[in-house]
Amino acid sequence: MRLGPRQILVLFVIGALGGLAGDQAHVASGATHYIDHSLPFIWRSEIWFPVAVGLGTVSVADLRLRLAPPQAPFDLREAVVGIASVLAIYAITAIVTDEATGSSVLLVTMLAALVAARFADGWPALVCGAAAALFGPAIEIAVVKADIASYGSNVDGLFGVAPWLPMLYFSFGVVVARLAEMASGDCTHG
Amino acid sequence: MRLGPRQILVLFVIGALGGLAGDQAHVASGATHYIDHSLPFIWRSEIWFPVAVGLGTVSVADLRLRLAPPQAPFDLREAVVGIASVLAIYAITAIVTDEATGSSVLLVTMLAALVAARFADGWPALVCGAAAALFGPAIEIAVVKADIASYGSNVDGLFGVAPWLPMLYFSFGVVVARLAEMASGDCTHG
Amino acid sequence: MRLGPRQILVLFVIGALGGLAGDQAHVASGATHYIDHSLPFIWRSEIWFPVAVGLGTVSVADLRLRLAPPQAPFDLREAVVGIASVLAIYAITAIVTDEATGSSVLLVTMLAALVAARFADGWPALVCGAAAALFGPAIEIAVVKADIASYGSNVDGLFGVAPWLPMLYFSFGVVVARLAEMASGDCTHG
Repeated sequence: MRLGPRQILVLFVIGALGGLAGDQAHVASGATHYIDHSLPFIWRSEIWFPVAVGLGTVSVADLRLRLAPPQAPFDLREAVVGIASVLAIYAITAIVTDEATGSSVLLVTMLAALVAARFADGWPALVCGAAAALFGPAIEIAVVKADIASYGSNVDGLFGVAPWLPMLYFSFGVVVARLAEMASGDCTHG
Repeated sequence: MRLGPRQILVLFVIGALGGLAGDQAHVASGATHYIDHSLPFIWRSEIWFPVAVGLGTVSVADLRLRLAPPQAPFDLREAVVGIASVLAIYAITAIVTDEATGSSVLLVTMLAALVAARFADGWPALVCGAAAALFGPAIEIAVVKADIASYGSNVDGLFGVAPWLPMLYFSFGVVVARLAEMASGDCTHG
Repeated sequence: MRLGPRQILVLFVIGALGGLAGDQAHVASGATHYIDHSLPFIWRSEIWFPVAVGLGTVSVADLRLRLAPPQAPFDLREAVVGIASVLAIYAITAIVTDEATGSSVLLVTMLAALVAARFADGWPALVCGAAAALFGPAIEIAVVKADIASYGSNVDGLFGVAPWLPMLYFSFGVVVARLAEMASGDCTHG
């Protein structure tokens, strides 16, 4: 692990809070629905969800730092833009729940391309985005198969999860890669 | 007042026209509805509305110049980006009138964060945004209580006004702070 | 023609693929509907549509290079941002098919203003945008009058086509002008 305890904690909290904020939108709009209620809920999420997003955030950040040396220095404004961009796309996926798949997937894919063009420093960030786009939906497909949660009937076309889900995770992976660089830079100077 | 007569007039007109453009979207989508019709209407707004937005624009601009010296020079392209960003968010609030509150508030809040990251020069702009986020909705709540206008039943959850209203006003305040700097710089060079 | 065969081919393909991606969203959302089925379909478009968009892309690019010397060098990231911005707006026009015209036109117009502020190098790009905003909808109006295709009942208010269509074409024209500059620069260095 290339991250110190403080960096791990900060990235975990950012991921968990972002996951809670986005998931409440998905639940509110009917994009997703929790079938299982055996564990406590925080806001509108069963507790494993923010924990999983937090762990995913730390994992992608660690992957980024293993791929190549960090180059981006810490920049609060840049961090705000990255996090707000991903959460805006998260909210948009909730809002387009009732829309035709062809429209929603095109929009989310183009927004993911804009995020990549803005934040990817090259192949390491794209690898992080691709890894998130692969493993994130794979885990969610397993969650749906296990009847723990489900996607709405208009957004379950990709093995039970939403067709735009890989592109949402891709944006997440690219931005977390940038956050990892910043966190690492912060570590060096701190 | 730190603004000259020409600057006051330009800012008032920008605010009034922007208010008319956004308000027609709110009325068209059913986000808002005028109960009172005792005064003349311009486009789809009762005349006090564009006047109030124009005065609010001048007031926030004056606040910005009292808080700290202006630093941003006049830049037409920057002014277009700022105004178009706020009006795009204004249009989006109209479009999400029928959406779940959790989704629409998350989206508008994240877009407001992007506007702040792009346009805020520091605490003076954030104070202007916060002032607009406080006084704008407060005045609208009074308008609703006075039965002059009302918000739609899906967007009246914040004391009768829309829950995303403070974030829309925040964006407005941050951008007007930047316009105030530009107007002032224009004055110096003119 | 100021473009070489390779530049013409690349621009035609970008335009045709972008047209296909956007048109499937318009068809999926019900914004547009093909009445005529006498020619083969690719994805969800009758074959003349991607051909027309490809030819339009080459025509606007040629116009740009006739107006003024190219100034922007080739930049893959910039090309991605331009193309993704136009296709995101294309997707948004599909998504707002059911919305009030006042809201959707305001949103698309403001997004077009943001594209212009980001990509227009001055009057040549604006002329390309204006030419696209004039001829594109004019051709589509002729297509509708010929009963080859039609717009949905909520988005046919501009002589049978959508009121936001000129602004979508304007964004297209401005970005194609930039792509033309890049393609030309690529030619010089290649």
